[in-house]
Amino acid sequence: MSPGVIGQPVALDAMGGDQGPAPLVGGAVRALAQGIPVLLVGDRAALEPLVPAGVDLPIRHAATAVGMGESPATAVRRKPTSSIVQAVSALREGDACAAVSCGHTGATMAAALFGLGRLPRVSRPALATVVPRADGGKLVLLDLGANVDSRPEHLAQFAVMGACFARVAVGLDDPRVGLLSNGAEPGKGNELVREAAPLLAQLPLRFIGNIEPEAALRGGCEVLVCDGFVGNIMLKTVEATAAVVSRVLRDEVARRLSTRIGARLLGGILGRFRDRTDAQNVGGALLLGVPGVVVAGHGRSDERAVEHAIELAWRSAKNGLGPAVGEAITDALG
Amino acid sequence: MSPGVIGQPVALDAMGGDQGPAPLVGGAVRALAQGIPVLLVGDRAALEPLVPAGVDLPIRHAATAVGMGESPATAVRRKPTSSIVQAVSALREGDACAAVSCGHTGATMAAALFGLGRLPRVSRPALATVVPRADGGKLVLLDLGANVDSRPEHLAQFAVMGACFARVAVGLDDPRVGLLSNGAEPGKGNELVREAAPLLAQLPLRFIGNIEPEAALRGGCEVLVCDGFVGNIMLKTVEATAAVVSRVLRDEVARRLSTRIGARLLGGILGRFRDRTDAQNVGGALLLGVPGVVVAGHGRSDERAVEHAIELAWRSAKNGLGPAVGEAITDALG
Repeated sequence: MSPGVIGQPVALDAMGGDQGPAPLVGGAVRALAQGIPVLLVGDRAALEPLVPAGVDLPIRHAATAVGMGESPATAVRRKPTSSIVQAVSALREGDACAAVSCGHTGATMAAALFGLGRLPRVSRPALATVVPRADGGKLVLLDLGANVDSRPEHLAQFAVMGACFARVAVGLDDPRVGLLSNGAEPGKGNELVREAAPLLAQLPLRFIGNIEPEAALRGGCEVLVCDGFVGNIMLKTVEATAAVVSRVLRDEVARRLSTRIGARLLGGILGRFRDRTDAQNVGGALLLGVPGVVVAGHGRSDERAVEHAIELAWRSAKNGLGPAVGEAITDALG
Repeated sequence: MSPGVIGQPVALDAMGGDQGPAPLVGGAVRALAQGIPVLLVGDRAALEPLVPAGVDLPIRHAATAVGMGESPATAVRRKPTSSIVQAVSALREGDACAAVSCGHTGATMAAALFGLGRLPRVSRPALATVVPRADGGKLVLLDLGANVDSRPEHLAQFAVMGACFARVAVGLDDPRVGLLSNGAEPGKGNELVREAAPLLAQLPLRFIGNIEPEAALRGGCEVLVCDGFVGNIMLKTVEATAAVVSRVLRDEVARRLSTRIGARLLGGILGRFRDRTDAQNVGGALLLGVPGVVVAGHGRSDERAVEHAIELAWRSAKNGLGPAVGEAITDALG
């Protein structure tokens, strides 16, 4: 059912991203050092000089690339030789276990849908990611914007796919599923939420009903379901607020502590603080609902973020996420 | 046009809030110390013992109160003697310049709408608040949930009212108005955003188009317009993330610095940090679109937050927010 072959390398679109191929190849080198094989997909002439001598990173040549400014669906159709299309082709043809791109998320989705199709019974694939919770736990959030206008039955599918992702790829047993709302009481929410809640309640899931952002981020559920417009706003707001708060904190530290000792004391704290809150650690978003593991990373990913995106793809493929999502959908809705 | 009388006290629903009347009376004492007269509205027997001797806080007796668990509209209709209804009555009758409640936001809205009606041409009143931006500026965000399902023309009205609030009560000249979206490019957004954007572009406002959460929080606009469901999720996510990040930071400090010196060094930093990021500083949300100034504070407001809510109400009334919103709506849409 899933076209990726476990044990094969992760195909990395090495041309997609805001900062050119260097951080992408750098991330691949880091992943390889952890024992994860990576297949670089992109312009051989541009990539070869970036691969350190003696490092085993094979290249699948792709003559073109999809730019951040292009219309994703059009560009993917017109550029079969582009790095994102070729990364998905490597997956489809069994030369990779998963595909990762930090290029235009819309192009990644279009390439995956054109190249792999959808799983049976999935009407709308969704993007899911993992957000760190206040209690140290993990929260799977979806949809992040694969769709901007959703119907109640789409949210039910997101719930099934998100719970499967949480179990198989994030390691959360029997995850609690919440429906993002402006109030926890039954009957709260906009029209979409009010219509989706009874559908989610009928699924073979541990559905806890409506939940507000704070309760979810504090540990009230492991899977948070919402439409893609709201999920995109929520994820970006978490990232922006964390960045803003960190910046305010650095300003205050700089204002008060000019001594080297103070700076050194705080250096370690701020480093760990960043490790625990930085969106770069998340690694990207899984596209759920296509047969195969496809990860869309942040456009501005640094080497560490690229490494985490590759890790996420590798772990998801190794744990059989592709077939598991198909089975979960069939079991719940089939 | 506006029923509040400038110079009269702020009517405070002294029974509404999660922690009983003590922090409410405490906030009123703090506001009074700043020269803002306050009229306490609530159960005289419960409130009198809380007012310190020699402090000039008159009480308007209200025999009942609306609980957090009651259906707001029903409770407001059935309880004309409740503190929230009586606070709005004080405003309507000219005994107050504004009304403030930290009780159930739905009850505050219902009491305001039943007691004051809507401004001409306003189809849906909206809740607006001020969020601190990363650059030290202020961002007016609305709607925060006065409505959960909105139409494009409602968002246009929110834009006009929000820009007026920013000018008159927050002191932002010629504010830039953005439409919250999952992407800044024209044509991005869900169906509501795509239909609202051309309506906002026709208004006599400095409309900058679609904007993402990060750009808005970093200083890209002064007024951020969205439907009430999304605005509620965004505001709660900002608050929750700031709280989570602060908690992670405190954990890290505690883990590393056990000495008193370190704690003292950091005490000041954390205090200023909290001052700059704490939602309690915002003071609450203005209900725009009713004739008169009505502020809905946080249910869990402490004395400081109550003080800020009273300040916000006083400043808004003094600057003539009520009549100004009416004129802005007439100018733009009339």
